[in-house]
Amino acid sequence: MKFLKTIKVEEFKDILESISELKTGEEYITIEECFNRITSRDIQSRIDVPHFRKSRMDGFAVIAEDTFNAEEDNFINLELIETIQAGDIPQKELSSGQCSYVATGAAIPENANGVIMVEFTESQGNIISISKAITPGTHIIEIGHDIKKEAIIVNKGTIINLATMGILASSGIKDVWVFKQPKASLLSTGNELISQEIKTLEVGKIYDVNSIVLKKAIENTGVLVDFLGIIKDDYEELKKAIDDALENSDIVILSGGTSKGEGDLGPKVLEEYDNIEILVHGVKIKPGKPIIFAKIQNKIMFILPGYPTSALSCFYVFIDNFLRKLSGFPLKDNFSKEMEVGERIYSTVGRHEFKTVKIQEDGGVNKIFPIKTGSEAISTMFYADGYIEIDELESIIEKGDKRKVYFF
Amino acid sequence: MKFLKTIKVEEFKDILESISELKTGEEYITIEECFNRITSRDIQSRIDVPHFRKSRMDGFAVIAEDTFNAEEDNFINLELIETIQAGDIPQKELSSGQCSYVATGAAIPENANGVIMVEFTESQGNIISISKAITPGTHIIEIGHDIKKEAIIVNKGTIINLATMGILASSGIKDVWVFKQPKASLLSTGNELISQEIKTLEVGKIYDVNSIVLKKAIENTGVLVDFLGIIKDDYEELKKAIDDALENSDIVILSGGTSKGEGDLGPKVLEEYDNIEILVHGVKIKPGKPIIFAKIQNKIMFILPGYPTSALSCFYVFIDNFLRKLSGFPLKDNFSKEMEVGERIYSTVGRHEFKTVKIQEDGGVNKIFPIKTGSEAISTMFYADGYIEIDELESIIEKGDKRKVYFF
Repeated sequence: MKFLKTIKVEEFKDILESISELKTGEEYITIEECFNRITSRDIQSRIDVPHFRKSRMDGFAVIAEDTFNAEEDNFINLELIETIQAGDIPQKELSSGQCSYVATGAAIPENANGVIMVEFTESQGNIISISKAITPGTHIIEIGHDIKKEAIIVNKGTIINLATMGILASSGIKDVWVFKQPKASLLSTGNELISQEIKTLEVGKIYDVNSIVLKKAIENTGVLVDFLGIIKDDYEELKKAIDDALENSDIVILSGGTSKGEGDLGPKVLEEYDNIEILVHGVKIKPGKPIIFAKIQNKIMFILPGYPTSALSCFYVFIDNFLRKLSGFPLKDNFSKEMEVGERIYSTVGRHEFKTVKIQEDGGVNKIFPIKTGSEAISTMFYADGYIEIDELESIIEKGDKRKVYFF
Repeated sequence: MKFLKTIKVEEFKDILESISELKTGEEYITIEECFNRITSRDIQSRIDVPHFRKSRMDGFAVIAEDTFNAEEDNFINLELIETIQAGDIPQKELSSGQCSYVATGAAIPENANGVIMVEFTESQGNIISISKAITPGTHIIEIGHDIKKEAIIVNKGTIINLATMGILASSGIKDVWVFKQPKASLLSTGNELISQEIKTLEVGKIYDVNSIVLKKAIENTGVLVDFLGIIKDDYEELKKAIDDALENSDIVILSGGTSKGEGDLGPKVLEEYDNIEILVHGVKIKPGKPIIFAKIQNKIMFILPGYPTSALSCFYVFIDNFLRKLSGFPLKDNFSKEMEVGERIYSTVGRHEFKTVKIQEDGGVNKIFPIKTGSEAISTMFYADGYIEIDELESIIEKGDKRKVYFF
């Protein structure tokens, strides 16, 4: 097992890019549940759509040949033998000289091969006078015109959106094979962390934020997530928790574990595993330097900083779209816009910084302003509209410079 | 009661714009459930954050005055009396000449008023030698620095996002008052419609698509939705179903009800209601002309076309963001892009058309192509990437023209 050196942001992104998929198996779910899931098999239509010849218009189903001589000054009379509404089963077949009324979407009677619109007819009792000739096929939607029976309507590997649900529903499909959603286990570590269940907070303790925020952030990517609890800064306890997490999930996400002054507890525990490949240990970014990304026994593991603001920043920048790729959810468009900096911004040389900023009006123009609290303050994230990237070698961004803001 | 004339798209959008909110009452839910919900009261912090004086760094808590003469060539020795990790409660207060080790985030012992970073110290047993003077307050985060107890941390009417969940969690809040989600009832009407539960389809029948697709589309806006079933084209049955829907929900969405050749069943039933205000009856658009929008007894009602492709188009163009506004969900950005038309597109004069299009590469450039099937085909929606708007008076858009594509 090897711990690597601190790497750059782009290298980390490349490493994440290289992990293409998780093998999660498949499951059979109802069409109501399948939105945003990924088909694990090709899906064939159960039926022809439409599965009967139907009318595209309100009008009269006729034998087209009966109308060939009809003109505005040469009406042809046909006998009306039936009225067929949408949903009705035609009861009579046409003979020459006969017609049936058909509503839009209604089934065409046997022997009919065209529909003449109501506008080109006059009625008197059961005599329909026709003023226009039509060619065979006019205004008839043939069987399978839209979808052929047993045609593949949705390919394996497709994200099911509303239109896909529509095509499945119209083909009479009630259940679909999809890939299972990846499962993540979430852990918070730190002796200082306390659940919101506990009303009275002792000195030294703080409420655990990551169990709430990261849990929802992971859920939003289409990955199932179990919060396994707050783990003490204790080697045995953390080892056992990670073992459980690896046993029960595809992805393990741990925040904290670096709060002991003497060193990182998370990395120490990871050293124990045989089949571990530590792909990233430290990224040259602020906030969030101590991030770890590893593969253990074909499972994926992240260790994120404990500060909620840092953990959520790392999640947005690196993990959000990575998890979406694994679950198949649509990727998040990192909406960005170039804007003017409204106030000098300072940064630390030697670290690529994701600086949270807020957008405020200044002289009628929206400009970028730094958030002055640090990553230890939860309000930093709360008041931020997005972030700007500051290069490793930059220490100052001057007022008036232009920067791209990535919005949360 | 008055039925209005067919109106233009922009007029319809203005009418929807003028409906600002539904009164839905409030409910008390857990922080885990509150994502994308809207606060119905101002929320105050239960605690100061931090609620104890804490260290921003790994270092030694000192009485700053003890360090005033320390320099690189004039070390000052202090006695180490305690080690305080994050989460620990300090056991000893400092006297002059003493210090305690404090990890990042750990509580500061009583009497300490500064933290000196480990880098500026040397240790020998319990003697810590300090090479730098610090001013009072250095590296200490004071009580309430981030959030003051009882300060309003989230205003009434705020959509709760991940950062809001973070600030609630850090303030020890477990439950929040939010507005109830609006409730919609969904109905499909048409004698031809059959549920996917039924495997064998008779001639004349088709599978109901709107119950699946519109249901999910409504859910995605943050509105709760009940599908009340497929209603026959029968006056009494439809009246009863609408009565039930009005009784049990804030919004009623009906698709179809216009399939009887003799006229619209939906509008006929609506005529019965006393407190009805029909705001829209027909919009000059293709597809979807027969759309109805009404207020009945302070409830909102839409009647959409029965064809799934038309119903979903209308939903995207008019209803999606309207429901999001009512539920408080973030509005959908109608992502659009100007592109070149790759093939002549025909349209009907006299109707504003939302023409579904697909984007295909042509000579190395992505261009707009019309979808050739009509709104009666479910595959029209399935193969479309988006739509373009075609003005009432345009009949042809030439190859090479530029148009804005709105992506689904």
